[in-house]
Amino acid sequence: MLHSANLKKISNFSHILADTSGEVILRSFRTAALGIENKANRENFDPVTVADRAAEALIREKISATYPSHGIIGEEFGVTSPNSSEQDYCWILDPIDGTRAFLSGFPTWGTLIGLMIDQKPIFGMMNQPFTQERYWSDLQNNTSYYRSYHNDQDELKDQNIKTRPCPRLEDAILTSTHPDLFVDDFEKKSFYALKSKVRMTRYGGDCYSYCLLASGHIDLVVEAGLQIYDIAPLIPIIEGAGGIVSNWDGGPAHKGGRVIASGDPELHQQALDHLNS
Amino acid sequence: MLHSANLKKISNFSHILADTSGEVILRSFRTAALGIENKANRENFDPVTVADRAAEALIREKISATYPSHGIIGEEFGVTSPNSSEQDYCWILDPIDGTRAFLSGFPTWGTLIGLMIDQKPIFGMMNQPFTQERYWSDLQNNTSYYRSYHNDQDELKDQNIKTRPCPRLEDAILTSTHPDLFVDDFEKKSFYALKSKVRMTRYGGDCYSYCLLASGHIDLVVEAGLQIYDIAPLIPIIEGAGGIVSNWDGGPAHKGGRVIASGDPELHQQALDHLNS
Repeated sequence: MLHSANLKKISNFSHILADTSGEVILRSFRTAALGIENKANRENFDPVTVADRAAEALIREKISATYPSHGIIGEEFGVTSPNSSEQDYCWILDPIDGTRAFLSGFPTWGTLIGLMIDQKPIFGMMNQPFTQERYWSDLQNNTSYYRSYHNDQDELKDQNIKTRPCPRLEDAILTSTHPDLFVDDFEKKSFYALKSKVRMTRYGGDCYSYCLLASGHIDLVVEAGLQIYDIAPLIPIIEGAGGIVSNWDGGPAHKGGRVIASGDPELHQQALDHLNS
Repeated sequence: MLHSANLKKISNFSHILADTSGEVILRSFRTAALGIENKANRENFDPVTVADRAAEALIREKISATYPSHGIIGEEFGVTSPNSSEQDYCWILDPIDGTRAFLSGFPTWGTLIGLMIDQKPIFGMMNQPFTQERYWSDLQNNTSYYRSYHNDQDELKDQNIKTRPCPRLEDAILTSTHPDLFVDDFEKKSFYALKSKVRMTRYGGDCYSYCLLASGHIDLVVEAGLQIYDIAPLIPIIEGAGGIVSNWDGGPAHKGGRVIASGDPELHQQALDHLNS
């Protein structure tokens, strides 16, 4: 594990990455110059924007300059693995998590920046430059932070965030980015079985949902088909706030796939039981 | 029709309504003191918050003081019809359109303020106090406006907004607040038939989606089960920006029900054909 002085350095560095990438991305948000490409074929529309690539390139450049021995996994440019004894340090990047929300003009996307050591997420940050909100945690002292950085505020006040207690499924607010995330019969059946038990379900949200869960506004986020960069940077934020993230089998979620996050650990077990019943 | 001087007065007055209601609502956004009540029974969760009621009461008070002869229809307090020759002036209010988004901490709800004369929407405004965005139109000169009012801006610059051309369904971005809006077989079949033809579908959004359509970021919004206060105040914003709103039969949409909004009038006819095929 890192010394807290080094963690502080990682955190400060990540704030710089978020500041600079946020500026680049905002330049093309809600403009006609989005430059949408389709990474997949027509049936599987997988949009990537010029802003995605520009922001990830910028972040990678800064990481390579500051931590040349660290690995990088990013959505747009894949895996960089320096041949070094520090290969077990790996940054996980998603410049625009929620590209579809971004393309449609919604403010519920975010830039994800995470660091894993020995395959374990130890730092994570989500930055939303349009609403000027930032969430992060280095898992020190079981604390996650929220910052609203509207320029009109004289002083930036970071708030500690906490998940809320919600031990009963029938009181829970559940979110998921899109019902079409669930592709096979098992996933569909499981998700709708859980949905039928909760108080309310909202779609849309991407990374923004996990941060609202960490802040105690949402109780469950359930998704499938995630990649490592969709979830690993969010894990410290959720866990630092008192929440729990796993795959649908209860195992580690940092590699993606079928993921469930709960604000209340008691709720987590009940939700897992329903997904697998 | 109103003289433009009177329309300007209506518009200025609505900005005051939006400013004051926004302050009240923001006080309880993302706080534990939401005071959620359920207006319906357990199966049909219909949440209303203290903020909903407080904001509508405040807006009604101001309207009654300034325009005592005007009628008011609001989500929380129903219909007020002064016995007067000016009964055909009627304000349409939804203090928090998107209460579920509000409850979950998402910034995609809004305050809707509209005025109808002789059953025709002639002024509409949507205010989002958290992101500090406002959209409005009085249908004068075929213009709709957008204002971002972050306090750090020295000068507020109102932008004219326009829908974008998108004549082909296969290029369109479609949004809808929730697939569960579609309750009967006809509604479900129609919506999914349309969804299968478009480039991309996003859920979530409420009033925010219609404003993104007016701004040229989204091409279609399709919903069902709407009330008059969910849609009437948005109609001038969409039409002033060059878009078109109707019910699924192509008739007037201001009373709610099954509603479709399109940024491109050519797209509208194609979408109607698919909904009714």
